[in-house]
Amino acid sequence: MKIAERISRLGTETAFAVSQEAAEFAKGGNRVFPFHLGDINLQTPEVIVAAASRAITDGKTGYCPNAGIPELREALAADINDSHGTSYSMENVVIQPGGKPVIGKFILALMNPGDEVLYPNPGYPIYESQIEFHGGVPVPYSYKEGPDGFLLDVDAIEKAITDKTRLLIFNDFQNPMAAEASPEELEKIAQLAEKHDLYVLCDEAYFDIRYSGTSSSLASLKGMAERCVILYTFSKKFAMTGWRLGAAVAPAEVAAVFGKLNTNDESCSNHFIQYGALAGLEEDQGAVREILQVLKKRRDIGVEILNSIEGVKCFLPQTTFYLFPNVTGAMKKLGMESYDEFRKAALHATGVSFCTRLHFGKALPGEKEKYIRFAYSGINADELEEGLLKLKSFIEK
Amino acid sequence: MKIAERISRLGTETAFAVSQEAAEFAKGGNRVFPFHLGDINLQTPEVIVAAASRAITDGKTGYCPNAGIPELREALAADINDSHGTSYSMENVVIQPGGKPVIGKFILALMNPGDEVLYPNPGYPIYESQIEFHGGVPVPYSYKEGPDGFLLDVDAIEKAITDKTRLLIFNDFQNPMAAEASPEELEKIAQLAEKHDLYVLCDEAYFDIRYSGTSSSLASLKGMAERCVILYTFSKKFAMTGWRLGAAVAPAEVAAVFGKLNTNDESCSNHFIQYGALAGLEEDQGAVREILQVLKKRRDIGVEILNSIEGVKCFLPQTTFYLFPNVTGAMKKLGMESYDEFRKAALHATGVSFCTRLHFGKALPGEKEKYIRFAYSGINADELEEGLLKLKSFIEK
Repeated sequence: MKIAERISRLGTETAFAVSQEAAEFAKGGNRVFPFHLGDINLQTPEVIVAAASRAITDGKTGYCPNAGIPELREALAADINDSHGTSYSMENVVIQPGGKPVIGKFILALMNPGDEVLYPNPGYPIYESQIEFHGGVPVPYSYKEGPDGFLLDVDAIEKAITDKTRLLIFNDFQNPMAAEASPEELEKIAQLAEKHDLYVLCDEAYFDIRYSGTSSSLASLKGMAERCVILYTFSKKFAMTGWRLGAAVAPAEVAAVFGKLNTNDESCSNHFIQYGALAGLEEDQGAVREILQVLKKRRDIGVEILNSIEGVKCFLPQTTFYLFPNVTGAMKKLGMESYDEFRKAALHATGVSFCTRLHFGKALPGEKEKYIRFAYSGINADELEEGLLKLKSFIEK
Repeated sequence: MKIAERISRLGTETAFAVSQEAAEFAKGGNRVFPFHLGDINLQTPEVIVAAASRAITDGKTGYCPNAGIPELREALAADINDSHGTSYSMENVVIQPGGKPVIGKFILALMNPGDEVLYPNPGYPIYESQIEFHGGVPVPYSYKEGPDGFLLDVDAIEKAITDKTRLLIFNDFQNPMAAEASPEELEKIAQLAEKHDLYVLCDEAYFDIRYSGTSSSLASLKGMAERCVILYTFSKKFAMTGWRLGAAVAPAEVAAVFGKLNTNDESCSNHFIQYGALAGLEEDQGAVREILQVLKKRRDIGVEILNSIEGVKCFLPQTTFYLFPNVTGAMKKLGMESYDEFRKAALHATGVSFCTRLHFGKALPGEKEKYIRFAYSGINADELEEGLLKLKSFIEK
């Protein structure tokens, strides 16, 4: 069968290839330390499981409205208003089968072919893929190293804006860098959006994954809720990645378009799971705090060991479950230029499996520093420690 | 926010507006007999619920592969091979969050902008919507009344084919007409597909919903599996509409494209539900037979009462859970020309809520007969009887 032309513009998550290589290495009887995928090896809180099961018994197994059950839309609007200081109501909330569908629907709803879309690189690879797939022009922007973490290169963003720039994809609490914007950076981004009439996808998948301080949103700034579509997901906070439930939070007229896209694409999200998510939002947050404590411990061990390795430098991020160490020195020490050579050599010597910067976009012109990404959401603290110590020996050998 | 141009080409299911009118009428303290939506008011078989719950306990709450869990893909390939005489393997099966996503992905994977796509009218409205949305040209074909049921107008299909025709959407076991192709009709369609190099979406959502005889598939005919993408859903057979699980069954290279679209659009379908569906396929089919018996009884009562009404004529279909009576005489008797006038008058006089032919596409040139659609999946036999007898009184008054 002859495949349609547009499919040639469709990208993918090359991280899945890393999973496959790790799985094959494991098949050979080898031990693998899985740092490559942002999946979570913790149980979904019992209160959510119980509420979803109850909903099945109550017969919530038929279709629900395309935008989701009203109770969940209301509860999520209230939850986001609490943390964001916004004034969303259920009309602004459209439930989705995961956070990811919000990316493609944002592009479909707001981008015309030929429009330029700013997106982060390194960043989640689906942004670039969906922009190109639907005929837009992806324009990357990046981050630079600051004293305590990665900083948005706001000047570079402004320089990249042309009269064709229509959308900005902004992934604060960033995957893979674990970068987080300062209040000043948020203010500057808001000014740019206002000045150049940009609409913004605020990918806030990791908004609630934080270990100290509080998260702030671009959508909270004056006039910004009218320009922003928030990507919300139940996946991370509630350890529900495989349940597939998220939401778009958007101005009402855009939310209506998302609802119409739902009707066309999948009718609605799973019905009874929405009652589980509702319980997650409304009932005791003890289980969520436990998840965060487990992740925090992993982060602390990870950062400490990484920084003890010769030629490796790693920030201590307060958010996400990713570490993005600079490994320029380590690769030099090993005499390796190529990311893939380094990654495969490390996997085969130690079993430590991770993604590199190249799994999050092509290297930008003039980029010299080398980075790799560790996800610590899917590996227990003791294994994490053991794996990273093996990596240390491998690099320092 | 300024919405992208393509959204102006996005259609919807106008049947949802009928639901809303019915809900408002019910709010006024009125009794509604719901015949408008193809949802199912029966419980999902316990074996499925139990297996899904077990999978949660077993920690199947993280991501699964984009194309679904291998066990389910294998089991579904085997199930379809049993009923179709095909030789699919798991490489041909890509799990989806419902049957509906197969429609949009079929269009995205195989249609270039400007391509003409044949689709049934009356038919499921999402076909036309997705074709137009992605820049194709929808070309309707229709059915005509035969002695015992609706017949495909194969000659009209052939006449509609041009050198731009690329795809054919074929919904055997048809919604809304409950039409079913004869072996001769299938043969003719296969010849047309071969001759004009068409790829076919075989929407088989109702393949397993039948009351006598056996279903045949276009994909079973010689050479056709290489031209067909089968839309499979767990929704109808297993009373799982709100669970949102289905699959595309396609030649391997097309299945790979569907998998890549999954990665971009929603990562994967819900993980633990796939274990429920697997149990549904593999364990005792007693619950499925019970569902069919309940539906059959409703069908029999419905057809009998409808045919007893002056000016109404209804076939006895062996498949789907829809009736598509000809109401030309009844509307004439009531002095009504407009479908909406008839529908609303019936709702307000009797509480009987149904869709009309216009909820399944625009009337075709020269179309004179009038049809309405009753779904009997969401209404119990006694209510069904009471409602249709009220409708009889209303028409014969």
